[in-house]
Amino acid sequence: MDQVKIIEIKKSVFEDNNKDADALRQELKSRGVFLLNLMSSPGSGKTTTLIRTINLLKGRMGIAVMEADIDSDVDAIKIKDATGIQSIQLHTGGMCHLDAEMTRQGLQGLELEGIDLAILENVGNLVCPAEFDTGAVRNAMILSVPEGDDKPLKYPLMFSVCDVVVINKTDVLPFFDFDLEKCREYIRMRNPNAQVFPICAKTGEGVDAFAAWIEAQVNDWKQ
Amino acid sequence: MDQVKIIEIKKSVFEDNNKDADALRQELKSRGVFLLNLMSSPGSGKTTTLIRTINLLKGRMGIAVMEADIDSDVDAIKIKDATGIQSIQLHTGGMCHLDAEMTRQGLQGLELEGIDLAILENVGNLVCPAEFDTGAVRNAMILSVPEGDDKPLKYPLMFSVCDVVVINKTDVLPFFDFDLEKCREYIRMRNPNAQVFPICAKTGEGVDAFAAWIEAQVNDWKQ
Repeated sequence: MDQVKIIEIKKSVFEDNNKDADALRQELKSRGVFLLNLMSSPGSGKTTTLIRTINLLKGRMGIAVMEADIDSDVDAIKIKDATGIQSIQLHTGGMCHLDAEMTRQGLQGLELEGIDLAILENVGNLVCPAEFDTGAVRNAMILSVPEGDDKPLKYPLMFSVCDVVVINKTDVLPFFDFDLEKCREYIRMRNPNAQVFPICAKTGEGVDAFAAWIEAQVNDWKQ
Repeated sequence: MDQVKIIEIKKSVFEDNNKDADALRQELKSRGVFLLNLMSSPGSGKTTTLIRTINLLKGRMGIAVMEADIDSDVDAIKIKDATGIQSIQLHTGGMCHLDAEMTRQGLQGLELEGIDLAILENVGNLVCPAEFDTGAVRNAMILSVPEGDDKPLKYPLMFSVCDVVVINKTDVLPFFDFDLEKCREYIRMRNPNAQVFPICAKTGEGVDAFAAWIEAQVNDWKQ
């Protein structure tokens, strides 16, 4: 393949959110609430994955969900209808991500009594959400097969900040040029410690392993 | 379906880019260059669609491409190898979008002599790129079938600012719950004037209509 010209365009700098995120984590720790931040591209299956996962876990712990979107409330309604748990919608007013203060505003809208696991479904976006610590204890992301196995090359920060990469829509692997082993290798390049869970949220295949990982993390946090 | 709680989180404000974008459009007009801004989620097929489209148009006009990504240069190389046209990579240094000034920096890296159509492949992101006028004459976006037909509900601004919505990966329609008519209706809600082109970039089906639209726009601009 040929070489091409590369131009480095300047970047603006963000600040000060990290301290706030640490403070939020401390607050949550003292209340015994584990916050999971779930990120992905638009349409990779965050909501369907959450429904499957929550239905496996809800008998074992108290769970609440915050659904962040630019607009609409379809996801929060879907979660509530399909799982019966507490689910609220956060509208970001056009913002492309959530920071710790925005997450705190969301948490204030939840009834946290009896909640062990609060899940933030972040705005569908592989770029900005990765740049802002939300105060979550763990970050997870979903990469879906139709998006392509090269995404860790193009969105390095997202893969670096995530403890878990869920590879969703494995049922359509035969119809896409997606090399699972190559993808695992690209993920390792960005983050050697990331756990990878291939799943099919539509059928439920593989979701139990992701749910078990969450349960272990929550139990760990509460000790 | 049940109602759920909705919390409106505050938004920060952007400024001043619009004037710069108008100035850039004027500069391009005086040089006879039409700038097309192509946006989409990660993995929706921007690069493959461009390759198909450029190969239909390159005998009829001078074309150059700017590929914007957080990192990697795989797309610019792919375009160059598959079409032979001038193709450069823009690294945004982590930035989630391009504004007019960043686009101008990119254009300065192109040899514009003999170029009628400059294409900016924006960062894969349905949120931020929609908020910044790049100075392009027209905005186009790609929505791929696996992302779901509800995206116009969740990412309203992106669909509002686009003159064209290309619906890609129609070959996998049988494997996804994607209702093409419902999707057209949602797009109309956001933007009654948007043109919709269903295509399959992999096989080339439908790409000719999108290419013909571009050609008409370029000819119009150059008069």
